[in-house]
Amino acid sequence: MNAAYDRLTARFARMATINEAAAVLGWDAATMMPAGGGAARGDQLAVLAGLAHAQLTAPETAEDLATAEAGEQALDEWNSANLRLMRHAHTRAGAVPADLVEAQARANSSCEKIWREARRTGDFAMVRDALARVIGLVREQAAALAPVLGLSPYDSLMDGYQRGIGAADVAPVFAAYEVFLRDALPRAEALQAARPAPVRPVGPFAAAAQEALCRRMSGRAGLEAEHSRLDRSTHPFCGGTPTDVRITTRYDENDFAQSLMGVMHETGHALYERGLPAAFARQPVGEAAGMAAHESQSLIIEMQACRSEPYLAAMAVELAASFGADAAYEGANLARLLRRVGRGFIRVDADEMTYPAHVILRFRLEQALVSGDLVVADLPGAWNDGMRALLGVTPPSDTVGCLQDIHWYDGAVGYFPSYTLGAMAAAQLMAAARRALPDLDAALGQADLTPLVGWLRRHVHGMASRHGFNDLLRAATGKPLDPADFTAHLTVRYLT
Amino acid sequence: MNAAYDRLTARFARMATINEAAAVLGWDAATMMPAGGGAARGDQLAVLAGLAHAQLTAPETAEDLATAEAGEQALDEWNSANLRLMRHAHTRAGAVPADLVEAQARANSSCEKIWREARRTGDFAMVRDALARVIGLVREQAAALAPVLGLSPYDSLMDGYQRGIGAADVAPVFAAYEVFLRDALPRAEALQAARPAPVRPVGPFAAAAQEALCRRMSGRAGLEAEHSRLDRSTHPFCGGTPTDVRITTRYDENDFAQSLMGVMHETGHALYERGLPAAFARQPVGEAAGMAAHESQSLIIEMQACRSEPYLAAMAVELAASFGADAAYEGANLARLLRRVGRGFIRVDADEMTYPAHVILRFRLEQALVSGDLVVADLPGAWNDGMRALLGVTPPSDTVGCLQDIHWYDGAVGYFPSYTLGAMAAAQLMAAARRALPDLDAALGQADLTPLVGWLRRHVHGMASRHGFNDLLRAATGKPLDPADFTAHLTVRYLT
Repeated sequence: MNAAYDRLTARFARMATINEAAAVLGWDAATMMPAGGGAARGDQLAVLAGLAHAQLTAPETAEDLATAEAGEQALDEWNSANLRLMRHAHTRAGAVPADLVEAQARANSSCEKIWREARRTGDFAMVRDALARVIGLVREQAAALAPVLGLSPYDSLMDGYQRGIGAADVAPVFAAYEVFLRDALPRAEALQAARPAPVRPVGPFAAAAQEALCRRMSGRAGLEAEHSRLDRSTHPFCGGTPTDVRITTRYDENDFAQSLMGVMHETGHALYERGLPAAFARQPVGEAAGMAAHESQSLIIEMQACRSEPYLAAMAVELAASFGADAAYEGANLARLLRRVGRGFIRVDADEMTYPAHVILRFRLEQALVSGDLVVADLPGAWNDGMRALLGVTPPSDTVGCLQDIHWYDGAVGYFPSYTLGAMAAAQLMAAARRALPDLDAALGQADLTPLVGWLRRHVHGMASRHGFNDLLRAATGKPLDPADFTAHLTVRYLT
Repeated sequence: MNAAYDRLTARFARMATINEAAAVLGWDAATMMPAGGGAARGDQLAVLAGLAHAQLTAPETAEDLATAEAGEQALDEWNSANLRLMRHAHTRAGAVPADLVEAQARANSSCEKIWREARRTGDFAMVRDALARVIGLVREQAAALAPVLGLSPYDSLMDGYQRGIGAADVAPVFAAYEVFLRDALPRAEALQAARPAPVRPVGPFAAAAQEALCRRMSGRAGLEAEHSRLDRSTHPFCGGTPTDVRITTRYDENDFAQSLMGVMHETGHALYERGLPAAFARQPVGEAAGMAAHESQSLIIEMQACRSEPYLAAMAVELAASFGADAAYEGANLARLLRRVGRGFIRVDADEMTYPAHVILRFRLEQALVSGDLVVADLPGAWNDGMRALLGVTPPSDTVGCLQDIHWYDGAVGYFPSYTLGAMAAAQLMAAARRALPDLDAALGQADLTPLVGWLRRHVHGMASRHGFNDLLRAATGKPLDPADFTAHLTVRYLT
């Protein structure tokens, strides 16, 4: 038994090491690679993905899983959880036929290319057939996964991004949020309108000075230069590997906040990777607990900690040190500037109160696409109806409507709920950290995130995938996901 | 038959693609990686090396080789050469037992670490036992390779760096060079002493200006930004992949020549990779023809072209544009500055006339180490004796003697001859290019290397591994390696 389990851990470590190589190559493609290297890089990543997949689906893996499971009672809790996650990964990998995987890779890549042009021109019709093909294949994928996972087709897709939570958990939470928002948003807007408008700091903010500031603040959050990099890319992300984590941002010389808050967001992701338990490195149980859990760690840093009043006061001092004195760098003004609510069309630009509305819309539409209740041709109309119902606005074009996000056009269905589950979990974790750390605000007032990060390391980072999403929250906060902490946070921040 | 050959090309392409991934990760480790990522990177490279090796030694490879060879007459010349190179790679990979490969990897890595400290302190005794272990394993490796390759033990090591040339080819060439040098070096020194000393340009030369100059000159040699990068590293190298080639340098603000000539050297390597035939990308026959061939391409650019009088005149204009007018930037002065001979202790700092003496010393010593005629404990004495005999100088410490190069301490035995074979081939190719291109000097006078590179593309780069070293030279220049072109070049440059 132990021998079989040992072989499995070696095999999964090999697979994780291959995936680490792919992660660094992916980072390189987004930050360093000359354009002419793109075709070869695609081949390299495809070969590595194939090699990792072959490790997972090898006949020996199935045999060793069965043998190890027969003796599972000899394993401790962590290794037992590890074995279950190995089985889960093996089940998912084996459920979808290779030719479907390949057809999806081709369809997604082709659709994504067409989408770039369709979004630019606002021409949904251009990408409609390609998207229909992608969604058709996603439905086949979900149909293949559902029976072996014992989940609904949509939940089997969600499971690929965040294990342990499904549409039945999410739907009532989102419905309640919609009710909250209907009342809260107009009140927040009215309060905001009654207060002084924020003073906009005057740039230009030299990119080099922004970068130095970002490094300083990220370092004070606990991200070590010895184990990380900060570079530039068109789309900011956190990549790399746990001992060599790589975050990116972009610099707008007219707006220091985009890079600074973006870097703190990615720093939250990076700190999660840095805090994963070394004893289970390269094992399934040693990985981050999923996309919603990951987003909770970026948002607890960016939204909960860095937009708090004490942190903004400290940030005001840092901004003046970086860019020279300006009345706009005053904590209260920064709060007005960085905590504005508003009804926009674009998810990634949304404030924390309206962001969930964008997610709720996508969650409902993608469920309907998977069930077949919505056909792709009807997507633009359904999108605009949803925006009117949720936020009372109508996108003037599909570019800022159903064409704005890459996800569906690249075959990623079931991912969107993670953003808002993460925001809610972040508020819940912050409330628990605040109870546990009476001096939290004093540290935030020094731009020092290390007490908070220390707490997160014990209760979230260090727990890795030992628990599913709700059990992770239960162990850390005493209860499963409870959106009341999020609405309470919004109420304090925007409605008082 | 064709099916077997097709499976082989697919398998070798997969292996090459894995090696491409490793090449980018190796570049990243030297240029970008934070120190804390080192351990994980070592694992990643080891796993990729293992996966590539597994492709090569899989039982199906042996079966397909036998089947394809039985029908080889149906293949054209290129594919036939490709099949022979597949067999050669398979034979080499299968000849050395896995436990010896592993023991060598461990011993090399351990010795190399000790060597860094031994070199710093000049304490050969510190690394003696570790080196003896490395050399002992190299002798085992050579003994395993020799019978299956049908080569002598030392030649079987040389074969790993440059196929198609052995000690019996090299020894008389080197012996003749020693005779040439005994006469030529004192004459060159006397001529040099009788002429004005070079005026040293006064720095500092800002690193950013040096980098811009390097990019400009490299670009005018034909290296495309779309398919290349220039970065910094402690030890300059050319890495990456043929469509994404990555060169590095370091900048000394007191000396513009180190980075500029270094970048032109690496540009020569890079242009070779860029000029390999796309039709045989990722196939053995589509790779560079070996280390001596590769060095011929860096040296024809750095030594033959960029140190030519017309190029130096053009470089003078570029230097003034980068760093401001200075009488020192005059072609004739640059020639005195960049074409000085002298008897030094350090190979990598040597001029082109004395460099072969450093290589001859190493070639003789490493043959004696492999044959057992020289024991590691006697290396420092043998080294110093050799330096006295070849150059008439005695290293004041082993730091600038037998500890100066990493090669042996990292298990690389049989590599050194490639440097001088490359220098000689570069002179031979330049003489042929000059015959073929009557306007070559006019282009060099514009710092335009593209006519020369075009000729090299047709006769060297585009031929890839279609021929062995001597046949490559024969096809390009009408004769196998002929050191007379090199000594003629030195005679014109240093003795007239």
